[in-house]
Amino acid sequence: MSLGEFEIIRRYFDRRGTGAAAWRAEPDAERGVLLGIGDDAAVIDPDGPLVVTTDMLVEGVHFLAGMAADALGYRALAVSLSDLAAMGAAPRWALLAMSVEQAEARWLERFAAGFFELADRHGVALIGGDLTRGPLTVTVQLIGTARGGRFLTRAGGRVGDDVYVTGSLGDAAAGIELLSRRAAEDHTEDPPFRAREADWARAALEARLLRPTPRVAEGLALAEVASAAIDVSDGLLADLGHLCEASACGAVVELEKVPLSRALLEVFSRDAAQAYALGGGDDYELCFSASPADAERVREAVRDSRTEVHRIGRLTQGGGVVCMRDGHGVAPPRRV
Amino acid sequence: MSLGEFEIIRRYFDRRGTGAAAWRAEPDAERGVLLGIGDDAAVIDPDGPLVVTTDMLVEGVHFLAGMAADALGYRALAVSLSDLAAMGAAPRWALLAMSVEQAEARWLERFAAGFFELADRHGVALIGGDLTRGPLTVTVQLIGTARGGRFLTRAGGRVGDDVYVTGSLGDAAAGIELLSRRAAEDHTEDPPFRAREADWARAALEARLLRPTPRVAEGLALAEVASAAIDVSDGLLADLGHLCEASACGAVVELEKVPLSRALLEVFSRDAAQAYALGGGDDYELCFSASPADAERVREAVRDSRTEVHRIGRLTQGGGVVCMRDGHGVAPPRRV
Repeated sequence: MSLGEFEIIRRYFDRRGTGAAAWRAEPDAERGVLLGIGDDAAVIDPDGPLVVTTDMLVEGVHFLAGMAADALGYRALAVSLSDLAAMGAAPRWALLAMSVEQAEARWLERFAAGFFELADRHGVALIGGDLTRGPLTVTVQLIGTARGGRFLTRAGGRVGDDVYVTGSLGDAAAGIELLSRRAAEDHTEDPPFRAREADWARAALEARLLRPTPRVAEGLALAEVASAAIDVSDGLLADLGHLCEASACGAVVELEKVPLSRALLEVFSRDAAQAYALGGGDDYELCFSASPADAERVREAVRDSRTEVHRIGRLTQGGGVVCMRDGHGVAPPRRV
Repeated sequence: MSLGEFEIIRRYFDRRGTGAAAWRAEPDAERGVLLGIGDDAAVIDPDGPLVVTTDMLVEGVHFLAGMAADALGYRALAVSLSDLAAMGAAPRWALLAMSVEQAEARWLERFAAGFFELADRHGVALIGGDLTRGPLTVTVQLIGTARGGRFLTRAGGRVGDDVYVTGSLGDAAAGIELLSRRAAEDHTEDPPFRAREADWARAALEARLLRPTPRVAEGLALAEVASAAIDVSDGLLADLGHLCEASACGAVVELEKVPLSRALLEVFSRDAAQAYALGGGDDYELCFSASPADAERVREAVRDSRTEVHRIGRLTQGGGVVCMRDGHGVAPPRRV
């Protein structure tokens, strides 16, 4: 079934109701929305500085054709939530611009379900958007508040600060590898990999890729103590490099301290796992720096979220990002 | 020449400077920007309710392949400016998400020139965005302020209110017709239309299409007096229909009062011109309603901008949008 733009918006995205009433734009004062979906623009009522980001996903570039619609809806918002997490901001309002080849009711329903699953979890109100015909792309603009006017940037790191990451790294990149292996297997009689990998570990790695958990609560808590932060979307070495460039310093990463999940080590060798952890993006963990004097405050900040935080190195006087193993500089492991 | 994302942003879009300094995110306090391009998100400092909109342009859907890059950059922002104009809001901050097949330096330079031509005219700061590989699409998110907390919606119209439009209608739709005629002529020996149309009029109509003037100052001035407003992007009858639906009323349009430009009447018959004016979008004029008691205040509001405003009808008790000619109901003229 093919649907018109207004009907799609009314049916799947305008959740305040249906029919004419929805177009009368009842305010949702509790969420700071003075005017929501259905006019030329939305109106919000901020109570301080706002943090604003936009991210675009293009079929064939950021996701494979045929990706499940709910996973795409979830992911489109997750990517922007992760940006706000890296700023230490509280997400509040989203706009959604998307182009679709054809407006399939079932697909849109599942897309909306994935999007709102994550939006509801973080109290994000969808306040507007644009829907048009075209190649499949999804662009989310996300607006959040900087609590107490405080926010994190990439630029606040100082030489001597500790470098940390949340959670564990490399799972999403390993998940991509597993999915492409499976795609290859579909063309063979005798799957060469399936038997060798524990099902639970495969599932865990693929879930990290398809439903990443943006570290929103952690970012908010760290806004009080971190000196600089970035989300790991391009890979640890690349993103830590951006942080260093903005902070005008270098960094040392101690390879043995980079956190690897049990699932990742179940399926891959330690060398391969480290390569995924250093070079693979898409985990949407946070990488941040903090003064050594604040080590205990860092632990306290993330205690409530129960997310582990590992110190993996420190910021140095220039020299880019250097990897160390057992106290010696080494080349970063490459994917095998 | 093909360029990387960071280099493109630095060279064409990050106008605060070049090199590392640009990434240190110097605040642009005068424009309310606490953190601009180059981090995970931007930070702005609003001083009241914000009006937020997003619009997406897709090649082959909203513009033809091969459209001049500067016109595309201009248009992408103009469309969103027009939405804020219809809200009576003052535009302040923009984010730009775009996908391009290939990053051509010359093309990007001209795109940025067109975008900033209009951004500068309206004091809009580009604070962030996303640039990726993909089919050519441009999505602008625009954030503005509602002065004194006041903004216009489609929903405030009351039965008996006068209906007005700014400027004149139909030029852009006529411009599309002329451009497609010219494209057809390119394949013939003896152009059938060229001789019949005054060059100045052709140029004027095509300019309305390629470089529309969003009625930002007019919208701001009207925020104090209009009861409802919408921008004419889909066509007068369609957009007035949206206003009526949101305001739970109908409307009568007196055809002889719909303003037509001299250029439009130079090239087309009055019937054809009226058809373009009623059905054609892309003029980005404002259609708004106001109490008859406020007729003089409406004139005063737009006096400074020197844009003409014409009363074309009034809001009625239900019944959709009805066209009248010489006091009789008529079917809306169709394009010939």
